Amino acid sequence: MILVVSLNPALDVTYEVSSVHWAGVNRPHTVHVRPGGKGVNVARTLRALGADVTLVGLVGGSAGDELLDRLAGSGITLSLTWIGGQTRRTLTVVDGGREQAALFNEPGPAIEAGEFGEFFFRYEKTVARCSAVVLAGSLPRGVGDAAYAELIEAAGPVPTILDTSGAALALGAATGPTLVKPNLAELAGAAGRDLPDEVAVERAARELSRGATVVSLGADGLLAVDGDQSWLARPGGPVPGNPTGAGDAVVAGLADGLVRGLDWPGRLRHAVALGSATVSSPVAGEYAADAYDHHFANIAIRKNDNEKIGDRNNRFRNVDFRGTAGSDGAD
Amino acid sequence: MILVVSLNPALDVTYEVSSVHWAGVNRPHTVHVRPGGKGVNVARTLRALGADVTLVGLVGGSAGDELLDRLAGSGITLSLTWIGGQTRRTLTVVDGGREQAALFNEPGPAIEAGEFGEFFFRYEKTVARCSAVVLAGSLPRGVGDAAYAELIEAAGPVPTILDTSGAALALGAATGPTLVKPNLAELAGAAGRDLPDEVAVERAARELSRGATVVSLGADGLLAVDGDQSWLARPGGPVPGNPTGAGDAVVAGLADGLVRGLDWPGRLRHAVALGSATVSSPVAGEYAADAYDHHFANIAIRKNDNEKIGDRNNRFRNVDFRGTAGSDGAD
Repeated sequence: MILVVSLNPALDVTYEVSSVHWAGVNRPHTVHVRPGGKGVNVARTLRALGADVTLVGLVGGSAGDELLDRLAGSGITLSLTWIGGQTRRTLTVVDGGREQAALFNEPGPAIEAGEFGEFFFRYEKTVARCSAVVLAGSLPRGVGDAAYAELIEAAGPVPTILDTSGAALALGAATGPTLVKPNLAELAGAAGRDLPDEVAVERAARELSRGATVVSLGADGLLAVDGDQSWLARPGGPVPGNPTGAGDAVVAGLADGLVRGLDWPGRLRHAVALGSATVSSPVAGEYAADAYDHHFANIAIRKNDNEKIGDRNNRFRNVDFRGTAGSDGAD
Repeated sequence: MILVVSLNPALDVTYEVSSVHWAGVNRPHTVHVRPGGKGVNVARTLRALGADVTLVGLVGGSAGDELLDRLAGSGITLSLTWIGGQTRRTLTVVDGGREQAALFNEPGPAIEAGEFGEFFFRYEKTVARCSAVVLAGSLPRGVGDAAYAELIEAAGPVPTILDTSGAALALGAATGPTLVKPNLAELAGAAGRDLPDEVAVERAARELSRGATVVSLGADGLLAVDGDQSWLARPGGPVPGNPTGAGDAVVAGLADGLVRGLDWPGRLRHAVALGSATVSSPVAGEYAADAYDHHFANIAIRKNDNEKIGDRNNRFRNVDFRGTAGSDGAD
């Protein structure tokens, strides 16, 4: 069983409006509501892959109620801790006329120490029975930046996968989880410097954690660093579509590959194919099995020769190193 | 006890954003949530006036849950019927930088015949014990345009006050409720013609219903028509502020005045003062007692001399007859 931690889940609401009147009255023609937040997205993709998944985390208020209702038939085992605050909503207003979207992220609840304590008790009880733990997304207010670090330590020998940003990433990665998955902007943030080329990215990835690091490069695929080895996995070509949730699908693929004992090339191929199939899916954050097969067949994996690294200073010639933060899902 | 019917209540949500990015990510600095819809607003103002109020209507989903939670401590007796659909939310995005607001009205639930039947059973049981019934707001999908007409007939001798628009107004008013309160645009819609002057407004008001009609004229006050008598009640001067909910405060004032046995000048003065105090309140849809007193003292009431009506064709010289629909609350 894979345990997924979602401390700050969300109810993702989308209003589709023909042409938004920003100083008047609008009647959305379609309203979509979907449980979201990185952890929930990872859990859903793992479940779609057939994994046995348990979701732990913090929910409350009417949005929390609705999130539980909507996850009830998903096949994900729910073991969430109820809080006094309101689970946040994210609202996307899709302006069909202008072909643009505005996202509104509510501030989300402030967590009481006792609530986090209750969650932690439940986490500790569950984690020993797990094959892996995924810790994904932002931390809510009231939860200290060291929360992921504590959860990784409490996992003991159970493999841990961390996907977050900022201080939570820096502190969590320092405890040496099995795998960390920053995107390029998150890695640069943790390194505290620009990462102008592949050598700089590899070096920052090694510094981030004593475990493995997989850096998501948006449309350019994944760079994995494990000890003194590294691999680059690239999609066969450009994948048009909606990148929302693609980063979460990559995390799910890496967790699934780890639990299933795939080697690095196998894990990366699985993760990149899931990410690409999520981008090309007509439904944001989901993936289609036939698209997965198509993308899987076209992925190029290259193992870097790290003894010659000094000779080849700029191997990702097509990667835009100025930032791919926006392509990794909103959270 | 005053019975207020709210067949299509709403959860009114407001996001305050410093400066909206319409094609990017926004983090609202403040999120307000408030039970709304015309009926709920009328019930709240009646309660603030000290009236004994029971609210009946249809609620469902997580927004319905939250609406019930937030009304729980209000002092309003709740006797709402639970439905399978989702109570609608209205979202106002206030753009502080541009000083403008966008309103998004969700389509709202579709009501099953059995759900309306359950509500109707509860209404019939309660109505005989009431001193007045207020029927306010739009009808949800699945409820026929004749719903208010049926509810007015089922009220028997109990006084009824109707505030709605379109076909629901035309059919409801035709059954002769005690009082109908259209605004100018709603009255023109029911009449099927423009109403260019006071004589035209009075004539349309008389045609609308065999009961009394009070036409809200926005900043110009109220025109009441009862049999062959009519009155005009005007605020002492312009009232700067937010007109949201002012129309609902007027309805509450008219209901309260009716139940307390005030004469027409007294009722109109009460209703105009409540409307003005709601406009000038810093909190949308609420009113302050001292503002009420101030506005009350300055209202001018004029009884029209209807024998000379032909001589004075344009007594409302300052009224903009082209429409005051927007100043009457959103519903």
